[in-house]
Amino acid sequence: MSSDTTAVADFGLIGLAVMGQNLILNINDHGFKVCAFNRTVAKVDHFLDNEAKDTQIIGAHSVEEFVAKLKRPRKMMLLVKAGSAVDKFIETLLPHLEEGDIIIDGGNSNYADTQRRYEYLTSKRILFVGCGVSGGEEGARYGPSLMPGGNPKAWPHLKPIFQAIAAKAPDGAPCCDWVGEGGAGHFVKMVHNGIEYGDMQLISEVYQIFRDGVGYTNDEQGDIFAEWNKGVLDSFLIEITTDILRFKDTDGQPLLEKIRDAAGQKGTGKWTAISALDYGMPVTLIGEAVFARCLSSLKDERVRASKALAGPSNCKFTGDKAKLIKDLEQAMYASKIISYAQGFMLMREASTLYKWNLNYGSIALMWRGGCIIRSAFLGDIKNAFDADKNLESLLFAPFFQKATSTAQDGWRSAICTATMLGIPVPALSTALSFYDGYRTARLPANMIQAQRDYFGAHTYELESSPGNYLHTNWTGRGGNVHASTYDA
Amino acid sequence: MSSDTTAVADFGLIGLAVMGQNLILNINDHGFKVCAFNRTVAKVDHFLDNEAKDTQIIGAHSVEEFVAKLKRPRKMMLLVKAGSAVDKFIETLLPHLEEGDIIIDGGNSNYADTQRRYEYLTSKRILFVGCGVSGGEEGARYGPSLMPGGNPKAWPHLKPIFQAIAAKAPDGAPCCDWVGEGGAGHFVKMVHNGIEYGDMQLISEVYQIFRDGVGYTNDEQGDIFAEWNKGVLDSFLIEITTDILRFKDTDGQPLLEKIRDAAGQKGTGKWTAISALDYGMPVTLIGEAVFARCLSSLKDERVRASKALAGPSNCKFTGDKAKLIKDLEQAMYASKIISYAQGFMLMREASTLYKWNLNYGSIALMWRGGCIIRSAFLGDIKNAFDADKNLESLLFAPFFQKATSTAQDGWRSAICTATMLGIPVPALSTALSFYDGYRTARLPANMIQAQRDYFGAHTYELESSPGNYLHTNWTGRGGNVHASTYDA
Repeated sequence: MSSDTTAVADFGLIGLAVMGQNLILNINDHGFKVCAFNRTVAKVDHFLDNEAKDTQIIGAHSVEEFVAKLKRPRKMMLLVKAGSAVDKFIETLLPHLEEGDIIIDGGNSNYADTQRRYEYLTSKRILFVGCGVSGGEEGARYGPSLMPGGNPKAWPHLKPIFQAIAAKAPDGAPCCDWVGEGGAGHFVKMVHNGIEYGDMQLISEVYQIFRDGVGYTNDEQGDIFAEWNKGVLDSFLIEITTDILRFKDTDGQPLLEKIRDAAGQKGTGKWTAISALDYGMPVTLIGEAVFARCLSSLKDERVRASKALAGPSNCKFTGDKAKLIKDLEQAMYASKIISYAQGFMLMREASTLYKWNLNYGSIALMWRGGCIIRSAFLGDIKNAFDADKNLESLLFAPFFQKATSTAQDGWRSAICTATMLGIPVPALSTALSFYDGYRTARLPANMIQAQRDYFGAHTYELESSPGNYLHTNWTGRGGNVHASTYDA
Repeated sequence: MSSDTTAVADFGLIGLAVMGQNLILNINDHGFKVCAFNRTVAKVDHFLDNEAKDTQIIGAHSVEEFVAKLKRPRKMMLLVKAGSAVDKFIETLLPHLEEGDIIIDGGNSNYADTQRRYEYLTSKRILFVGCGVSGGEEGARYGPSLMPGGNPKAWPHLKPIFQAIAAKAPDGAPCCDWVGEGGAGHFVKMVHNGIEYGDMQLISEVYQIFRDGVGYTNDEQGDIFAEWNKGVLDSFLIEITTDILRFKDTDGQPLLEKIRDAAGQKGTGKWTAISALDYGMPVTLIGEAVFARCLSSLKDERVRASKALAGPSNCKFTGDKAKLIKDLEQAMYASKIISYAQGFMLMREASTLYKWNLNYGSIALMWRGGCIIRSAFLGDIKNAFDADKNLESLLFAPFFQKATSTAQDGWRSAICTATMLGIPVPALSTALSFYDGYRTARLPANMIQAQRDYFGAHTYELESSPGNYLHTNWTGRGGNVHASTYDA
C-alpha cells in the first residue's frame, strides 16, 4: 500500500464488515476515490488485496494517515458497531480533525445517541451526520436507500456522492435526500426498520394460513406470492418470499421447513415500538410484530404448550380457496396501509416535537428503492403526499381511502377464517382493530375515564366542554380532593 | 400542635394529598401513633384540625421535628409526587437519620429509580423500601393492597403495621407481603397497573359491542354486568362498571354517555409495555390497552376519520343475543387469563434477571384484595401457584387449561361478530392471537428467519440443531461474510 499521505481521497470509510466493504466498492464504482480504514488493520490489507483489488480504493494503517489522505473538507463515514464503538472512534478521530470536517455515522444507531453526538460535535465545530442505510449487503453494494440527517451544512458536500450511489426509483430519482436535523435520519431509519418487521409479520401470518389452514405446498404458495408480486403487493419482500418458498435443500425438500421458528432481532423494531409508547402514538402493528418475534423465541415453552392447550375442533379450511387467496391479498394490503399510516403518524409526532419539518413525500421516495421495504406501494404513498403535503394521515388520501374501503370485506372475512381455524393473526387483526377504532367518533374510552374517576378521582371531560376536568362522587362515599399532580 | 419532640410516634408519613391522608387515618385506626408532615406546612395544621381531629395523629412543622418525633428505628413513608420530589425529600431527611432508619417510598415510582435509591441508601446504611400501593382513595383509607420491596431488613419492622392496615382476602389473610429486593415492589406494582389497563380495555370493548353492535341501553348493560359479577368475572372493576352504567346525571340521562372518550394515563401502563419490550416478553394485551388509550386521545382526528372512512355495510347485530352475552363473558374471561399469564411471564423474566425470587402465589394474594384489579379470579391464580410454585405459565395450570379450552368457541365467535360489525376489539383479539400462537409448536417465524438471512445474512438455526447458526446463499449472488456483531 502507498505510504503517500497526500490528500487524494474524496471520501473515507471506517469499518470493513459487509456493509462497509460494499459501500466502499459502490462509491468507487461511481468514480470517487475512497480511503478505507479498520480498527483491526490487517483487514485493510486483506480488503485491498482481494475485494478492492484493481480499484481506485486506497487504505490507511492508522487514523492519522486515514485523515491525512482525505481531501478537505474531510468526509469520513463510520460503519462500525452501534453503541460505544461509535463514540470511541469519534474520540480517536477528533484530534486529527479541523472545523468543517464531516463525520457520518452509517450504523444502526439509536436516534437519541445521534442527537447527542450531533450536539457534541457541533460544539466542536465538526459537522455530524447520522445516516440510516438500508438494503442489506446487496443494497450497500449496488444502491442502498440512504437517510441522512444531522448538520445541514454537511449536505451539499455529501449530496453528490450519496445521491450517486443510492438506489434509484423507477423514474431515476435517487432514493436519498436530506431528512432533517439532529437525530432525524436515524429516527426515520428506525421507523423503516419497524415497518420492515410489520411487513414481514404480515407475510408470515399469511404463510401460516396457507401452510396450516389450507395445506398448500411451498411451491403452490410460491406461485401465489409470485402472482401477488404483480399486483398491489409488488415489493422486494414479496419477491424474496417467493424465492424462499421455492428454495430446495440438497435433498430436494424445501429448506424453509427445516428452519427453526425462533426469530432473532437486532433491536430497531423494538425501538420503534418504545418510541411509539413514549410519544403516545398507536403504532400497534409494529408492536405486535415485535411481540410476535418475542413469542417465537419462547420455542421450547411453545412446544410444551402445544401438547397442553386445546385448539378449535376444526383447523382445516374447507371453504372457497380462490376467494380466500383474494381475501388474504386484500387483508395484507389493507394491513400494510394501516402499518405505514401508523409509522407516518409516529414520524409526524416526532417531527413536531423536534421541529424536524420532515418531508413525508421525500421519505416515501427514499424508501421507494434500495431498502428492504421497497415497493410500488411507496410510490403511491409519495403521490399522496405530493398531492397534499399536509396530509394528516395516509388514510385520508383518496387513493388509500378507496383501497381500505374496497379491501375491508375480504379483510374481515380473512380474519374470521383464521380466528375460527385457530391460526394466530396478531398483525392482520390489530390493523383492522386500528382501522375500526380510528374511524369511530365515539370510542368506549368514556368508560375508562369514568372508571378512573370512580376509583382514583382522576377526573374526566364532558363531550360538551373539552378541556374542563370534572370529578363525580360516583358512590356518595368519596371525598373532594382530586388526585392530580399534588406536591406535598 | 404539641411542640413536644419526644419520640412517641410509631410511624411517620410525609405527603398530605388524598393517598397520604387516607393512609395516615387507616394506620391510626389500627392503633398506631402517626406523625404527619407536608412540605407546605399549613396543610399539616389543616389536616390535624379537620380530617385528623380527635385522633392520635400528631404533626410536625419541620423535617427535623418530624424525625425527632419517631420512635427508633424510625419508619418514614413518602407519599409525594414520583420523580425528583422523592430524591429531594430523601436528601432533606438524610442529615437527620441514623443507621437502620427506614424510608418507604409509597408513590408510583419507576422501579429503576427505586433500584437506584435502594443502592444509594444502602450505601448510607439507611433501609429503603419501595412500596406499591393500590386501591385508590378508598383502598388507602380502609385497606389497600401493599407491595413492599427493597431492603429485607426493614420488613420485620414494617410487617405489623402494613399487614394490619392492608386489605384482607376472604379468608382473612392480609393482601401484603414482602415482594423482593431492590425495585421488586414497584415492579410488581407496575405490572399490576398494566394489568389494570388490560382489564379496563376488555370491559370497554365489550361495552362498545353492547352499545353500538346490539343497541342495549345502559341499564340493560348494567344488568348484564351485574349478572357477570356473580360468575367468573366477579371483580371490583365489573362491580364499578355496573354502578357507572346505572349512574344518572341530574337530568335523568346516563352520565357515562356525556363523558368524552379521550382516556388519560399516568404512565405506569406504558412502563409495563416498555418493560415487556425491553425484556422480550410478549405482553400483547397490555400493549394494546395502552395503545388504545393513545388512539382515544386522538379524538379530533377520529371524528374527522369517522366522516371519511367506510365501515361494513351492516354494523348492527342480528343474531342470538343471549348467546352473544355468553360468548362475550367467555371471551372476556379467557382474555383476562391471557393478560394475567402475560403479566406473570414478565415478572418471571424480571425475577430471573434481578434474582428477586418472586413468590407468585404471594403476589396473587397481594392482588386478591384492596387493589383495583381485586377479584375472585386472583384466588384461582393463587391456588394455581400454591399447587405448583414452579408453574411455568398460568396457562399450564389444570384450572386455567380447562377454562381457556371451554371458553374458546365463544371467544372465537365473539371476535368474529365484532370483526364483521366493524367494532374494534384490539385486546380481545390479541389475547386470542397469543393463545393460538403460544400453543403452536411451529410458528411461521421460520419465514422471518429465512428473510433476514436472505437480505441481511443474519443467519438461522435448523430445527434439527438449535444453537448452530447457518447462512444460505439464497440467490447465488451473495457473499460470504456474516453480518454478526462485527467489530471494525
